[in-house]
Amino acid sequence: MTQAPPPAIYSLAVPRFVGVPTFMRLPYVGLDAVAGHEVAVYGIPSDAGAPFRTGARFGPQAMRAQSIMLRPINPYRGNLDVLGTLRVCDAGDSPVVPGYLPETMLRIEAYTAALLAAGCLPLGIGGDHSVTLPELRAVAARHGPLALVHFDAHTDTWDAYFDGLPYSAGTPFRRAAEEGIVDPARSIQIGMRGTLFKPTDISQSIDLGYRVVTTDEALALGPANLARAVAERVGDAPAFLTFDMDFVDPASAPGVQTPEAGGPSAREALAMLRALHSIRLVGADVVETNPLYDGPGQVTALLTATIAAEILALIADTKRGNGKTPAGGG
Amino acid sequence: MTQAPPPAIYSLAVPRFVGVPTFMRLPYVGLDAVAGHEVAVYGIPSDAGAPFRTGARFGPQAMRAQSIMLRPINPYRGNLDVLGTLRVCDAGDSPVVPGYLPETMLRIEAYTAALLAAGCLPLGIGGDHSVTLPELRAVAARHGPLALVHFDAHTDTWDAYFDGLPYSAGTPFRRAAEEGIVDPARSIQIGMRGTLFKPTDISQSIDLGYRVVTTDEALALGPANLARAVAERVGDAPAFLTFDMDFVDPASAPGVQTPEAGGPSAREALAMLRALHSIRLVGADVVETNPLYDGPGQVTALLTATIAAEILALIADTKRGNGKTPAGGG
Amino acid sequence: MTQAPPPAIYSLAVPRFVGVPTFMRLPYVGLDAVAGHEVAVYGIPSDAGAPFRTGARFGPQAMRAQSIMLRPINPYRGNLDVLGTLRVCDAGDSPVVPGYLPETMLRIEAYTAALLAAGCLPLGIGGDHSVTLPELRAVAARHGPLALVHFDAHTDTWDAYFDGLPYSAGTPFRRAAEEGIVDPARSIQIGMRGTLFKPTDISQSIDLGYRVVTTDEALALGPANLARAVAERVGDAPAFLTFDMDFVDPASAPGVQTPEAGGPSAREALAMLRALHSIRLVGADVVETNPLYDGPGQVTALLTATIAAEILALIADTKRGNGKTPAGGG
Amino acid sequence: MTQAPPPAIYSLAVPRFVGVPTFMRLPYVGLDAVAGHEVAVYGIPSDAGAPFRTGARFGPQAMRAQSIMLRPINPYRGNLDVLGTLRVCDAGDSPVVPGYLPETMLRIEAYTAALLAAGCLPLGIGGDHSVTLPELRAVAARHGPLALVHFDAHTDTWDAYFDGLPYSAGTPFRRAAEEGIVDPARSIQIGMRGTLFKPTDISQSIDLGYRVVTTDEALALGPANLARAVAERVGDAPAFLTFDMDFVDPASAPGVQTPEAGGPSAREALAMLRALHSIRLVGADVVETNPLYDGPGQVTALLTATIAAEILALIADTKRGNGKTPAGGG
Amino acid sequence: MTQAPPPAIYSLAVPRFVGVPTFMRLPYVGLDAVAGHEVAVYGIPSDAGAPFRTGARFGPQAMRAQSIMLRPINPYRGNLDVLGTLRVCDAGDSPVVPGYLPETMLRIEAYTAALLAAGCLPLGIGGDHSVTLPELRAVAARHGPLALVHFDAHTDTWDAYFDGLPYSAGTPFRRAAEEGIVDPARSIQIGMRGTLFKPTDISQSIDLGYRVVTTDEALALGPANLARAVAERVGDAPAFLTFDMDFVDPASAPGVQTPEAGGPSAREALAMLRALHSIRLVGADVVETNPLYDGPGQVTALLTATIAAEILALIADTKRGNGKTPAGGG
Amino acid sequence: MTQAPPPAIYSLAVPRFVGVPTFMRLPYVGLDAVAGHEVAVYGIPSDAGAPFRTGARFGPQAMRAQSIMLRPINPYRGNLDVLGTLRVCDAGDSPVVPGYLPETMLRIEAYTAALLAAGCLPLGIGGDHSVTLPELRAVAARHGPLALVHFDAHTDTWDAYFDGLPYSAGTPFRRAAEEGIVDPARSIQIGMRGTLFKPTDISQSIDLGYRVVTTDEALALGPANLARAVAERVGDAPAFLTFDMDFVDPASAPGVQTPEAGGPSAREALAMLRALHSIRLVGADVVETNPLYDGPGQVTALLTATIAAEILALIADTKRGNGKTPAGGG
Repeated sequence: MTQAPPPAIYSLAVPRFVGVPTFMRLPYVGLDAVAGHEVAVYGIPSDAGAPFRTGARFGPQAMRAQSIMLRPINPYRGNLDVLGTLRVCDAGDSPVVPGYLPETMLRIEAYTAALLAAGCLPLGIGGDHSVTLPELRAVAARHGPLALVHFDAHTDTWDAYFDGLPYSAGTPFRRAAEEGIVDPARSIQIGMRGTLFKPTDISQSIDLGYRVVTTDEALALGPANLARAVAERVGDAPAFLTFDMDFVDPASAPGVQTPEAGGPSAREALAMLRALHSIRLVGADVVETNPLYDGPGQVTALLTATIAAEILALIADTKRGNGKTPAGGG
Repeated sequence: MTQAPPPAIYSLAVPRFVGVPTFMRLPYVGLDAVAGHEVAVYGIPSDAGAPFRTGARFGPQAMRAQSIMLRPINPYRGNLDVLGTLRVCDAGDSPVVPGYLPETMLRIEAYTAALLAAGCLPLGIGGDHSVTLPELRAVAARHGPLALVHFDAHTDTWDAYFDGLPYSAGTPFRRAAEEGIVDPARSIQIGMRGTLFKPTDISQSIDLGYRVVTTDEALALGPANLARAVAERVGDAPAFLTFDMDFVDPASAPGVQTPEAGGPSAREALAMLRALHSIRLVGADVVETNPLYDGPGQVTALLTATIAAEILALIADTKRGNGKTPAGGG
Repeated sequence: MTQAPPPAIYSLAVPRFVGVPTFMRLPYVGLDAVAGHEVAVYGIPSDAGAPFRTGARFGPQAMRAQSIMLRPINPYRGNLDVLGTLRVCDAGDSPVVPGYLPETMLRIEAYTAALLAAGCLPLGIGGDHSVTLPELRAVAARHGPLALVHFDAHTDTWDAYFDGLPYSAGTPFRRAAEEGIVDPARSIQIGMRGTLFKPTDISQSIDLGYRVVTTDEALALGPANLARAVAERVGDAPAFLTFDMDFVDPASAPGVQTPEAGGPSAREALAMLRALHSIRLVGADVVETNPLYDGPGQVTALLTATIAAEILALIADTKRGNGKTPAGGG
Repeated sequence: MTQAPPPAIYSLAVPRFVGVPTFMRLPYVGLDAVAGHEVAVYGIPSDAGAPFRTGARFGPQAMRAQSIMLRPINPYRGNLDVLGTLRVCDAGDSPVVPGYLPETMLRIEAYTAALLAAGCLPLGIGGDHSVTLPELRAVAARHGPLALVHFDAHTDTWDAYFDGLPYSAGTPFRRAAEEGIVDPARSIQIGMRGTLFKPTDISQSIDLGYRVVTTDEALALGPANLARAVAERVGDAPAFLTFDMDFVDPASAPGVQTPEAGGPSAREALAMLRALHSIRLVGADVVETNPLYDGPGQVTALLTATIAAEILALIADTKRGNGKTPAGGG
Repeated sequence: MTQAPPPAIYSLAVPRFVGVPTFMRLPYVGLDAVAGHEVAVYGIPSDAGAPFRTGARFGPQAMRAQSIMLRPINPYRGNLDVLGTLRVCDAGDSPVVPGYLPETMLRIEAYTAALLAAGCLPLGIGGDHSVTLPELRAVAARHGPLALVHFDAHTDTWDAYFDGLPYSAGTPFRRAAEEGIVDPARSIQIGMRGTLFKPTDISQSIDLGYRVVTTDEALALGPANLARAVAERVGDAPAFLTFDMDFVDPASAPGVQTPEAGGPSAREALAMLRALHSIRLVGADVVETNPLYDGPGQVTALLTATIAAEILALIADTKRGNGKTPAGGG
Repeated sequence: MTQAPPPAIYSLAVPRFVGVPTFMRLPYVGLDAVAGHEVAVYGIPSDAGAPFRTGARFGPQAMRAQSIMLRPINPYRGNLDVLGTLRVCDAGDSPVVPGYLPETMLRIEAYTAALLAAGCLPLGIGGDHSVTLPELRAVAARHGPLALVHFDAHTDTWDAYFDGLPYSAGTPFRRAAEEGIVDPARSIQIGMRGTLFKPTDISQSIDLGYRVVTTDEALALGPANLARAVAERVGDAPAFLTFDMDFVDPASAPGVQTPEAGGPSAREALAMLRALHSIRLVGADVVETNPLYDGPGQVTALLTATIAAEILALIADTKRGNGKTPAGGG
């Protein structure tokens, strides 16, 4: 059956600065109109979990404002027409409640669940990393325990932050393992680097069952081998890809919540994403973009949008390869 | 006949940073859906006429991003429920063609005419001051010669800029007088100050028939007397209010195209607008906001939005006073 | 009994950029060493209550960094040697828990209570306005219902924000009235301006018993009359002065949480503070400074520090006048 | 004898951003070509005397970059054609030696003397206030003891900074009085405000013989009375006007070395300058502009250039009034 | 025949912040004085062709301000004394007409032709990429069809932008091929990457006859092989090198018009330029530097200046190698 | 003998933005309390030697503000517990005298000597590179001629700057060789790149006896070989490591005094440091961080702190290896 390409505004006809920016100039639709789209890109503007730099609540807007520089064809997967292959929309933002992290998480879970219920694969834009836990809850409720493909400078598997309270940007992947919504045996954490709070900051993830690949190891493997390792680890499990922008070096991503000196460049990070294949994604997010720390060039926001577009390309490539619609909520 | 208030998103329920910002969180509608609104706020993102600092193309987006801080009730006109009194929408942006000022002006005129044809009073957000000429052309085509109420540090009645070319941010009100779309005998220019190119920079306006009130004179008059002078000058002519943000002192409006030291403060400027009354507005704009020069606090963009909201309040107040719908395109 | 002046570092001997900045270069002491100081200046770095712009958690640091430009003698109260008259320390920051506003409020209340227990008058530096409620709880626990002297562009007496949750920067003074820790009949709110959510945004305060003086009214009164009105309202009740930096116009204070165009200038605001007299202060704070929006000149942070220093001068002046030590926790 | 107007580039013909910016787009000449000009505007890019914020070395460049917005006619003195009345050049920058303040002062004195020897009235652009002492030395060497007209938030008459070393931005006007190059009995300091190091910060100036007018007093007097007071104080003595940009409130001048909250607005400051008359200026400077703290709008640099242009207008007005060439080095 | 080295100001004697910055502190000469220089570096301050981010009109000034950090000796070509080998001047800026792109292009062509007529090789500093077409017209008028060596993330061979209008930053190299002023068979485009508007964005260049080397291919080749490929492609044709700063990754060049994530680092880009040899350059430019997006460190402007200096070194190296003066206009 | 770990504030318990930032949240102690610490990290806030960009006086504060993101365990040396192995304090800042470089150097030497006398190994944070000479004087006075391990884009062995004056950021390592406090035969300079003032800019160092390794050579060697070369050069001499932040590419370190395009990335620079071993460090510094040029992300300051932490790790690793306390002043 044929389908019309999404009516993204065409930047050769209408200058990019004309009109309100939505993700890649795609239609901006409410929950009542997301049905019929295969992928819903949506903002999750919460920084309630930020232990230090705050402002990621403005991440979705900043990402959108730079995403208008992106174009629909991806040359890294054979001139793939991403927006012609996939029906994608900008599904607005999840509600949040500033100052009330547990309440905020409930709303994020509900919004993600609504997108899934409408048949959309949810692609979230953070927000700090605490937003991923409610996303995972909603996606796992539909698909069962998830394989996690996690790019980040930090494991985010600490037990608690600040007086033992359970939720923050530093704890979601311990909680997810405890809750059984992620299957660590199918999961991989990539990019850890920098100084540690405790000698166990890395081993605590391994103890939970995750595979951990440090930045140095990931770069030594190279994109192709790393992609192979990911594919082997994930297998045919339903997978969730979460990309914390602090995975990338601060030179390429100064506008993040917890910058860690000495990471991969933007080119190295993109090459890793472009090499991924054979993953059955059922959800994804890109998080921790903080435009208040990003400088006038907004290079972090642009890279965030580019990474979101590469994740879309991976989903479209999978669809092209197997002729099946993405497993959003199907 | 009763009418529903405009469905602006309510900021006591939904945090302001949730979702894509539109003017005062009002619905964002295309030309095909503006009918039924009394006022259409729209962006005119052209800086093709900028003789020095460029970037006003991003003015509409910046204004929208700060306008979400505004609320619907205006206490300066008796707790007037502006958005309950007037049906207002955000009508998107006029198309433009970077680098081609004459072609851009045609598109602005057409967009403005379309809003008028749909029955909306057009309230434009610039863009540099060259955008006002095509607005005036469209509005005068419907309403006849217009009374101009012009707040600005500069007369913008020079004959030509740069090799005698006729259009720029410095020439629209000479062109408008020449074309007969503005009636200088009904018009007033308020706020001139600063150094001059030629001894005739002010008198050239007077020679065209405008009344000129300098910044010093406006402040000496005070808001009430100034408002009286405006009302007397304009009379019952259909009026167009154009507000160049450089009217305000650079301390309150650093993000403008041609800052001029020594102007009114934001409070003084707002007091002048709040005192206006008895003007039959048929169009308006606020121009020359340039967020690239505005600093992280974006105080200019916030003031721009506040001024646009005060113009809305003036229109709503007139409607409330005389029971008639604004003369947008009626 | 004689007392040594506080050992503030002397900026004619040691350049201001040498060493870690503390408030006015005063000693930085922990809770275990605050005893013996009459006033404890302390940071309350929480922005958990921020409904829009976040970042006030960095307000105390920013204020300290600019406070080093201040000198000990205040010429507006007869060359009063503020730091020679009062024993003042920088008492560090209250603990907070990002993302958990109710838990954060408990910690602020406890920290303030500890300062009071050590005999110090607490002078807090925010943080968003939600921090004032736990301060009031602690101070009222010691002194009984308080007269509130409240400078702000907004009443902050809304009932709830976002799904009916009780705490935020917009609700503390309704909560305080409900809890009986503030006596509205002795209290005054000064500086309200700008657009309103509802027609009752102002009257809701009056209904609670507060006196409300808008920005326009405050400026029309002038500093001396305003001070008289404050003194009459407060009488001899124990008073708490809370100063929200958005009271001041965004030109003078761009780095705030909820800027409102058209406020008093820095000079006008300082004049109002310098005119205050005959108030029995038992606590105070200056809040909502957000350095992420403040520009490289950090004028908001400098003004915040200057206002804190003027509050200190008011306390010192009262002590000089009546020979009594400030009623911190005595 | 007729004279050609200075060949400033005409901004109605050549856009302001075309070419390297010089002061008001005037010719940029070396010391070998200044002869024949009545006024030499020159940079003094030293911040060696800065006790806190450094970067005023970039003040002259920043001032030039904004000065291109200025036009040759001054409407505040009867549409005076300033650049047609006076022969003005941009005479480049004085040499300096970073890190060596005494050596730097020798070079500034020599450069100023060379301008005077060529018959030019020197109008310096700082640099921090330590540059004024060598200027005064050079000017007084030619004209005798000078009447000082000093706009500043601070007296700059401290005895020493940092280990008793004699030179800094805080000491020049004590040194000048000691050296007899300024006649305090003919001199006036205007604008003092803010907290003091010692109770004598103001009286130390009076003890030296200066008249001191605080910010509050200057504003209470108003421009006309203040100008009268200046004229009476100066009489017919050869006068040097020094304008420290921190005289102005930080809202209007955030990019200064030692901001002091609560000063005059830009408009108030310009009104004071525009009211001055009957002063026999033989030298002047505008100092302490620091673009590193000025924000993207560069409002301080624009105001600095505007103030320099007003000083030029005062000189031109005097020449027009008495038919005599300015007493630069004549 | 001996020649004096260009009298660039020596930064070991005169601090770099002293005086108005010109390119590498070389003499700033008008068109009437360029004769006798072998290379004329000149600004082309037009951003009329910018389809998105505007502000490249300030590129030349920003580049000059950072170029003062460069020194005359290039160690990458055997300690080549570039400014001692070549007579270079800063030839000011081409006139432009804001808002009128076709008219602006005529002026750029005329200015470039005048430099060529005076015997100078033109080295332009943009401005957006639309400025290169008139440069090529002028250079080809003297030297015949040119070999283009084009570094860029984009091909800039689209047919039209915005309503079919022919000129913009996205179309010059289609126009140049159509006009026969560039010989695509001798030309090479290097650095293409990122998403595409259409599947033909790359192949449209190949269809025109260009050789295209993507970023990935260029990095895989390495500097030496790439230089060999360039030399073979260009042969002995007169060549024009155009370097769009968006060739470089946004981490190294945030201040550009159309940033594209994932490009070469500054070091990789410089290595490619330093490896070039055996090219008969008759003109060159570096374009699309936009200081409004460059952050306080101005790293893009510094890199722009460094790249211009490397192009000078290539020209000087060629002269040293073959003893012939550069083929500017000879 | 057991020792308690330093009481650094634990960022899993207390959010990083709570309290005044000291280096890695370690205790901030005066000279009277440094005894008992093995390493004293201290600021040297002088930019008196800066030949161009000034502001490094704010480097220590900026470094501290970002250092709070660091954690105590270093995984690159076998999960070494750096702060548990070494007793480290933040020893405040050396006094300085703005504008008086020679006098400033005396104070730096004295402060460093006092730290040594208390038994601490001094680890200074600049400040411009002129601060290293007085550090070397103090350290050599205790340990004899030092082996210098010098990372920098420039040799800093020029003879004089600006009128032959001996001290500046460009001359310390010639002075040190002349004074015999550094033994060039044991010393190595790493990272030189970019254009040169004179053909001898590099060879002048070799002539003094230093070994010079350019950026290109260092990267070609790789971290392990470079570390071997350093170890061989230094041997068992007491060594001083000085790290100028301009060693790193401006993409990773925009906030430096003399940026030089084309350097190692942050990751490459850190790898070089992490490979170092078997050096008997008796002192170290990291210099030329200038936060005024660093952008809102403050990536340079964060990298500066990370490098300081890596130097600490090298010292701790040496202690762990040989069981001996660091040779601070012992």
